[in-house]
Amino acid sequence: MLLRVRYSETDQMGTYYNSRPLEWFECARSELMRSLGRPYTEIERAGLFMPVREAHVEYLGKARYDDLLRVRSVLTMPSRAQIRFDVEITQAETGLPVCRGYTIHAVVNAAGKPVRPPKWLAELVSAEGAQAGENGATLCP
Amino acid sequence: MLLRVRYSETDQMGTYYNSRPLEWFECARSELMRSLGRPYTEIERAGLFMPVREAHVEYLGKARYDDLLRVRSVLTMPSRAQIRFDVEITQAETGLPVCRGYTIHAVVNAAGKPVRPPKWLAELVSAEGAQAGENGATLCP
Amino acid sequence: MLLRVRYSETDQMGTYYNSRPLEWFECARSELMRSLGRPYTEIERAGLFMPVREAHVEYLGKARYDDLLRVRSVLTMPSRAQIRFDVEITQAETGLPVCRGYTIHAVVNAAGKPVRPPKWLAELVSAEGAQAGENGATLCP
Amino acid sequence: MLLRVRYSETDQMGTYYNSRPLEWFECARSELMRSLGRPYTEIERAGLFMPVREAHVEYLGKARYDDLLRVRSVLTMPSRAQIRFDVEITQAETGLPVCRGYTIHAVVNAAGKPVRPPKWLAELVSAEGAQAGENGATLCP
Repeated sequence: MLLRVRYSETDQMGTYYNSRPLEWFECARSELMRSLGRPYTEIERAGLFMPVREAHVEYLGKARYDDLLRVRSVLTMPSRAQIRFDVEITQAETGLPVCRGYTIHAVVNAAGKPVRPPKWLAELVSAEGAQAGENGATLCP
Repeated sequence: MLLRVRYSETDQMGTYYNSRPLEWFECARSELMRSLGRPYTEIERAGLFMPVREAHVEYLGKARYDDLLRVRSVLTMPSRAQIRFDVEITQAETGLPVCRGYTIHAVVNAAGKPVRPPKWLAELVSAEGAQAGENGATLCP
Repeated sequence: MLLRVRYSETDQMGTYYNSRPLEWFECARSELMRSLGRPYTEIERAGLFMPVREAHVEYLGKARYDDLLRVRSVLTMPSRAQIRFDVEITQAETGLPVCRGYTIHAVVNAAGKPVRPPKWLAELVSAEGAQAGENGATLCP
Repeated sequence: MLLRVRYSETDQMGTYYNSRPLEWFECARSELMRSLGRPYTEIERAGLFMPVREAHVEYLGKARYDDLLRVRSVLTMPSRAQIRFDVEITQAETGLPVCRGYTIHAVVNAAGKPVRPPKWLAELVSAEGAQAGENGATLCP
């Protein structure tokens, strides 16, 4: 996935503000789920929600207004109840690193109660894990 | 009401990004409704919503990270179906203008259908209008 | 230009938060200037800045997370010292209106002092005005 | 420090969006540095910058629009070149946990080159460490 840094995403230090990667990670998750045939909107419509339980970001390099960024993401399941997205963001033109990190999610129902992730998700992750190994974690175009 | 400019609210031009006033206007509305004894949370809990229909901002001066801003707001009803908040933001120390503007709101029910604003709101606005005239539109401390 | 509503752009009312259109308008300006051969980054690098002096938004319809939006923009010069962008945002699939509005900009130098807009900008606007008339204000693809 | 959840900080899940804690952490850092007599604005004016190198957030509980949050922060130096802020956010009324996490910062000069943190910072941290121990990490009022 490609993203352009918005003016609203910069701060007075001249690069992206430190909370923006978490917004970009969310875009990456949306695009990855869509590319896997399971848009997150459909998941929520089916009564399942995937709230973030933990997030981690490493800031590796600058990204200025209008820079074009390449966003790569991988989906894994570290445990039967947890979903994890790893995201890596680089400058699209130069390949220079911008940031990387991950989010860990629970699966809950509309009442907020943790539920077992649906079978299709586990199957997706197995297939996905393989695919991620093959093409160097560039799952999300 | 006083607000401090957050680092996240600046952009690479070194002053506040142009969408921030709309977020500050919302804080002003929240504080004004609370100071009038009708917190907006209670209004929503009672099944009434006040979505923004129109917003206008004039950008009058710089506000940098950590600047302390004074936010004044006035509530009026331009028609029986409309609520309007005028907001003026100045530098708290120097009084220099930062921005001003307004938002116009409908009153809708949980289904999104426009409803007549409740009686208490009209009464609030009458009292409020008077008060605003008296003390120079400094209703929201 | 097409934009997808990010999860971060929604609020608890379930649609886009009211300050997001100003961020989308900025994306529209960026893309329009790029499509006209004058990316805004180059303008800033040349020492010219176009701070927003006034902004107006009308909220016309809902847009939910993951909705695909079509963003159209037109550039005009209401006076020799002012630049104006009109932006209209609709649902890409249904054509239903989401919001519309405008921003008015000054042209200033690095010291923040107003300067006369460069000649190329006026020429761009003349050409642009014509083009906008022809193809129904769909300048920004 | 106390913060109220803004409407703009909620998302369609009805609680705070997952990038907001990083913005609140920044407010916490600002207030902590101010309370220690070294406002971050003065540090930047002296030509030193403290960009975030790493951030971590654990999401522990809901916080809805208008909820009043208590924000506590502690400043430490894990190494001679690194500054760390730990932040904990709870519901002000009930004490229920909302989120916690940390940010790790480098100290750089205006050119972005890492520099040794100034002496006063190390001294502040020593004093601070002691103080944090005494009063249960409630340094930032």
